Amino acid sequence: MILTVTLNTALDLTYRVERLVPHSSHRVTTVAERPGGKGLNVARVLTALGHEVTVTGFVGGATGEAVREGLSGVRDALFGVSGATRRTVAVVDSASGDTTQLNEPGPLIAPPEWSAFLASYEQLLGSASAVALCGSLPPGVPVGAYAHLVRVARAAGVPVLLDTSGEPLRRGIAARPDIVKPNADELAELTGSWDPLPAARAARRRGAHAVVASLGPEGLLAATPEGSWQAAPPERVAGNPTGAGDSAVAALLSGLVTGEPWPRRLASAVALSAATVLAPAAGEFDASAYASFVDKVTVHRHADAA
Amino acid sequence: MILTVTLNTALDLTYRVERLVPHSSHRVTTVAERPGGKGLNVARVLTALGHEVTVTGFVGGATGEAVREGLSGVRDALFGVSGATRRTVAVVDSASGDTTQLNEPGPLIAPPEWSAFLASYEQLLGSASAVALCGSLPPGVPVGAYAHLVRVARAAGVPVLLDTSGEPLRRGIAARPDIVKPNADELAELTGSWDPLPAARAARRRGAHAVVASLGPEGLLAATPEGSWQAAPPERVAGNPTGAGDSAVAALLSGLVTGEPWPRRLASAVALSAATVLAPAAGEFDASAYASFVDKVTVHRHADAA
Repeated sequence: MILTVTLNTALDLTYRVERLVPHSSHRVTTVAERPGGKGLNVARVLTALGHEVTVTGFVGGATGEAVREGLSGVRDALFGVSGATRRTVAVVDSASGDTTQLNEPGPLIAPPEWSAFLASYEQLLGSASAVALCGSLPPGVPVGAYAHLVRVARAAGVPVLLDTSGEPLRRGIAARPDIVKPNADELAELTGSWDPLPAARAARRRGAHAVVASLGPEGLLAATPEGSWQAAPPERVAGNPTGAGDSAVAALLSGLVTGEPWPRRLASAVALSAATVLAPAAGEFDASAYASFVDKVTVHRHADAA
Repeated sequence: MILTVTLNTALDLTYRVERLVPHSSHRVTTVAERPGGKGLNVARVLTALGHEVTVTGFVGGATGEAVREGLSGVRDALFGVSGATRRTVAVVDSASGDTTQLNEPGPLIAPPEWSAFLASYEQLLGSASAVALCGSLPPGVPVGAYAHLVRVARAAGVPVLLDTSGEPLRRGIAARPDIVKPNADELAELTGSWDPLPAARAARRRGAHAVVASLGPEGLLAATPEGSWQAAPPERVAGNPTGAGDSAVAALLSGLVTGEPWPRRLASAVALSAATVLAPAAGEFDASAYASFVDKVTVHRHADAA
């Protein structure tokens, strides 16, 4: 099975309003509620791709119960804590589709909860073919948490993908994960360079075996031990980009465990991202668009670095 | 005991953000969560004033459980339904204190749930000294719901205060409640007049025995069978006006059951509203400010209507 870790799970709420106007009152016309946090989104897509998936991370309180009840098709190895799982609220303007995001910080994780989680994580790795470490850290979890989880996975011989940002990414990358998947902002923050190819190569030098940077509508750029590639979708797609990055992570993991060559992995990841943008619900993908896009993604190989 | 009815209870969330900017992403710095809906706020204040209070209305789902767990000092006679209790989100800009409100619509109440509630309401009235009917109607509840609840209370000989708006207020007022407490907007919507005294008197002619209009920082205006009064706070207070109207309702009910004369009731209601604006948490009141304000409210009697 593939293991996804979401330390800061969330109950994702989507509110539709006519138009968000600061400092006024709004009637929410429709409310959608579902489990969230990057690792749970990745798990949902992996399941749709036919993989067996186990999810772990922290949940607590009534919001945590709602997250658990909303899971389907995955093995729930989430770890109960005394704090309450955070909510995220996406407020969508009905006319324009423009979205305003409000993210709660998450529960305070106590040191014994973190230690108990680590023991359970090591055990779960025993039957994992790959592991994805995804998203922000809740309060109380040490900033070097991902670095530690990467080392434990590598010691267990389980390939590990890291998708986070800021200091947890900086520290995690030094622990030599197999793949990191920053977006352009995260990559620039990490390396100081806004030029994606040199930045991705710089990130490799910091410890990641492969760096796959998401460039938004322009697709993905990968710097790997086998070479560097840029993959672009066959057309510009309009829609809701929420979850597009998580779909790319799912495709990269899928390609990793099935041993696909990099160009094919990248084509799948770009096609799945674009198919996610097209789907009406955030974090789901349009299966027929995926099937039609996957052979039309252009993958261009960069010259090897000097 | 005093009975408060909140058909559309809520889990009230307060989010602090640095500054709300539409179509961008926000880190919520603090989250506060508590039971909401006007009738529950009124009950909280009545309890603080020393009254025995029973709360009823609808609750459901994980949010409903959170509402029930957050109640304290009141008798919980809330009625479980299959839909989930709505959330309201108040997004407060940290610097300015300006608030943006997002209100979910509430669960769909099925006809058998409404019928079962009515039977339980009639039974609760048997031991009530007064009843307050508060707030919006959830989907599925007939628009004439408050009119019916007013009639049932009057048939049971229980004085009834109605605090709602729009068509439910228009219909409810025709059922001859003892007191209605519209704000200036609601009164204008009901009567077509923005001049509060003639509007309040017009609302009386529509059926309410007494009309107490809240005029925001200017205080309250009452048109009653014993005369008309205007009551103003001793000073302009700055703070969070959320819950100030609910505190006024609590004071009016308290004065009703203890048989206080109108000028005294109005003084208490104005002082309690102002003390609520001053309290740091929405819907709580500053007890010492209340004690100091209550004898300083100016109550002016209007000449009788021609």
